[in-house]
This record gives sequence, C-alpha cells and structure tokens, in this order.
Amino acid sequence: MNEVINFQEKLTKFQEHWQPKVIAEMNDYQFKLVKIQGEFVWHDHPETDEVFMVLAGQMTIAFRDREVTLQAGEMFVVPKGVEHKPYAAAECHVLLIEPRGVVNTGTAGGEMTAVNDVWI
Amino acid sequence: MNEVINFQEKLTKFQEHWQPKVIAEMNDYQFKLVKIQGEFVWHDHPETDEVFMVLAGQMTIAFRDREVTLQAGEMFVVPKGVEHKPYAAAECHVLLIEPRGVVNTGTAGGEMTAVNDVWI
Repeated sequence: MNEVINFQEKLTKFQEHWQPKVIAEMNDYQFKLVKIQGEFVWHDHPETDEVFMVLAGQMTIAFRDREVTLQAGEMFVVPKGVEHKPYAAAECHVLLIEPRGVVNTGTAGGEMTAVNDVWI
Repeated sequence: MNEVINFQEKLTKFQEHWQPKVIAEMNDYQFKLVKIQGEFVWHDHPETDEVFMVLAGQMTIAFRDREVTLQAGEMFVVPKGVEHKPYAAAECHVLLIEPRGVVNTGTAGGEMTAVNDVWI
C-alpha cells in the first residue's frame, strides 16, 4: 500500500543537480524531485506536456520567445513540443510531473542526460 | 501560452469547501485546488489513481483498513478503486491531480458532488 511522501525528507536523500529522482507514480505518470543549479540545455518533449512545481528557491524557464520565473509555491506547464531551457542562479528544488519514460533532456541528448526512472 | 500559476493567489479566488477548482492541465490531467473542512463521503474512483498534495493545514484520508495523515509539504497517491474518505478538522488547502473528468465523489454521488471542470 502507498505511503505518505514528505518532500523535505525525500530531498535529504540526494545532492546532485539535474538528476531527477522518482518519488511516486499516479497511473502512468511520475512525480520526480530534482535539485537544479546553473543552466540546463535547450530541449523539448515532443510527446508530452511537463509540469514544473518549485518547492524551494527560484528558477527561470527560457523559451525561444520569452522566459518565465517561478518561485516556491508556483507551477508552470511546459506544452509538449515547445523548446525550453531551465536555469537557476542558486540551488532550486523542483517537483516534476510527467509521464513515465520521459528523459530530462528530451530529444536533445548530451552529457546532461540523466539515468531515467531512479527511485528514492 | 501558459502562465505561471501561484497557488496562494489562486486560493484567494474561492472560499467554499469540497468544491475543486481547476488551475491547470497537463495533457489530459488536471490540477485542482480544493479547500476542505469536516468529513467527506466514502467513495472510490474505479478508473484512476488520485493524488492529494497538502499545501496548508492537515488532512486525514481514511481507508477501510487504516488511515493516513498528511501535512503541508506531503502527498499521497490513492490507488484506483480503493475506497477512501477525506477529513480535515480545520480548513486544509489541497492540490488534487487526476485525469480530466474525475468527479469528486467518484461512484458514490450524493449532495457533496461538486460541479466538475470549474476553472479559476
């Protein structure tokens, strides 16, 4: 049976940046915690929307034509197929929600591609 | 294009209890804010899991064989088809995540059934 998931407790279990950790599944969707700092790569997810929810800190999501800034207590839905580049000047804690199987760098690949489906 | 969603700002837009308000969609899933206080009805959702994420306050989800208590910063996945009854002694603010079309009372119906798909 499922257990209560406490974000702060889960966040103590890893320190590395840009490597999402799965904490829960709802149907075929996953909830992933990630710590980010610095600049990610331009990428998109052609097959799905992606939710960013900030738990602590501040992040910016750059798009080709604008950017949005998220604080703790805010969320944003990146539409499928839209190129975006996350950025955080200082460490920021984020909850990602997206279908199982989505890779962090989408179709871009490269050295920032994280091992997928790692549970904590 | 999507906008940044601030939970506190959205929570100022309604006061009633047990009537979820949609704030975002990701593919065919909806994010709904709800203010709860008191006792809900036993119900289940035969077709889908359902996520409860507490933003402020404390709530309990009773199951037929146990109960779990959630604080702010915690989430729980109620598995599909599992009967549950939410409860909050004092007002509690919750983010629900579930597929579009899910009704709050599931298959139970009754007077606590909210109008579905109301956006704020």
